[in-house]
Amino acid sequence: MTYCVGMLIEAGLIMMADTRTNAGVDNISSFKKLHFLINEPDRLVVMASAGSLSATQTMLALLQEGIPDKHGTKRMIADMPNMFRTAELIGDAVVIARESVEEHLKTSGINGGVSMLLGGRIGNGPLSLYLIYSEGNFIQCQADSPFMQIGEHKYGKPILDRALHFDTPLDEAVKVGLLSYDATIRSNVSVDRPIDLIVMPADGRPAIQKRLDEDDPYFNELSATWGRLLIDARDKVPDPPFL
Amino acid sequence: MTYCVGMLIEAGLIMMADTRTNAGVDNISSFKKLHFLINEPDRLVVMASAGSLSATQTMLALLQEGIPDKHGTKRMIADMPNMFRTAELIGDAVVIARESVEEHLKTSGINGGVSMLLGGRIGNGPLSLYLIYSEGNFIQCQADSPFMQIGEHKYGKPILDRALHFDTPLDEAVKVGLLSYDATIRSNVSVDRPIDLIVMPADGRPAIQKRLDEDDPYFNELSATWGRLLIDARDKVPDPPFL
Repeated sequence: MTYCVGMLIEAGLIMMADTRTNAGVDNISSFKKLHFLINEPDRLVVMASAGSLSATQTMLALLQEGIPDKHGTKRMIADMPNMFRTAELIGDAVVIARESVEEHLKTSGINGGVSMLLGGRIGNGPLSLYLIYSEGNFIQCQADSPFMQIGEHKYGKPILDRALHFDTPLDEAVKVGLLSYDATIRSNVSVDRPIDLIVMPADGRPAIQKRLDEDDPYFNELSATWGRLLIDARDKVPDPPFL
Repeated sequence: MTYCVGMLIEAGLIMMADTRTNAGVDNISSFKKLHFLINEPDRLVVMASAGSLSATQTMLALLQEGIPDKHGTKRMIADMPNMFRTAELIGDAVVIARESVEEHLKTSGINGGVSMLLGGRIGNGPLSLYLIYSEGNFIQCQADSPFMQIGEHKYGKPILDRALHFDTPLDEAVKVGLLSYDATIRSNVSVDRPIDLIVMPADGRPAIQKRLDEDDPYFNELSATWGRLLIDARDKVPDPPFL
């Protein structure tokens, strides 16, 4: 499995992905799922993927070659005028990669779909975040619900629902994202560290890229502290009056 | 959807169920899913169900009539010598009900499966908790992982993993169960109050039955307090050193 989350708040854009892939439970590996597609001063495009690794890698190779439009002209991410057109281009690439992979998979019934989180900024445009479905259509993240998830998303959703808002400071949002991973990792063995993350501050500071390894001391401390604080919080909730 | 949880700890057994059923998203009703099958001083048997409502109701009616064994003799819950044999009897009833309902459903492809949580105590036996699968087989809850869930279980699992242990006091465990519902209800519109719960103390006090309605003031207070405490806890977690 995979768990990826993107958070688009007033203070910036944060994208996180785990690195675990598996074909069955007895064939587990570590693959990078969070990629800078472009990281230049006026064009920052980051992608996280969940689903078929084979289709994802096909898609990344296709994006390097360019994706043909209806007239056969090849379109590159570097030429897209804004994030909307970039999402559209990647949606097209998702469909082509899926069809290519599923052609091979049709006798096995295995799904070749991939879903994507796409985040970044082009030129003077705003930081934006899209979720691209395996059918190639997409939706954009809005302030009312300032996060998007793909993959094994349920375990990590309650803490995002509770503790992440559009006006949450950037460092607090990073904590919430990591707590969402902590919940998922504890409940589902198919999601695990290393966790990759990219933080894109809205104030124009350069993007920060970080990998939290299996033995990362900050994540260990966050996880242990959170465990103690949750028990404290449980004890502080009023006792049931009916016992 | 449905979410049911059973918690078997040193201090007792707690079972909870929501009451929402739906056939699609536009046909939502409220049905009781937590039942005393028997509530007598020397025999306490409680069942919670998830899955086909039609199969559940068929199963409850069959249990009233008695479930035939291999020789055609009808077995009643009131005659079972212990909780293991009760789980076996209910597993048989699940299979018969499922086959009966799926006979009607075969043209539509709808699943007639039900899963069950079965808890209680018979005679001088210990309080025990079983999860009965829709195929009729079952597993028993153990102290290492002192809870079992059926239905929409993922949103509510992290708080149980974190804040419920075998030695957690009974009132704290009730809070954790309700916090697990709070997480599920916030994240999934198909689970909602009223929440039914039955608490069976290990010290021999009588079982306590309670329904928390849509406007229950204790649940409202628990939910609001928890929201504030989570934000406090988030703020207390150490800041990321890499920002």
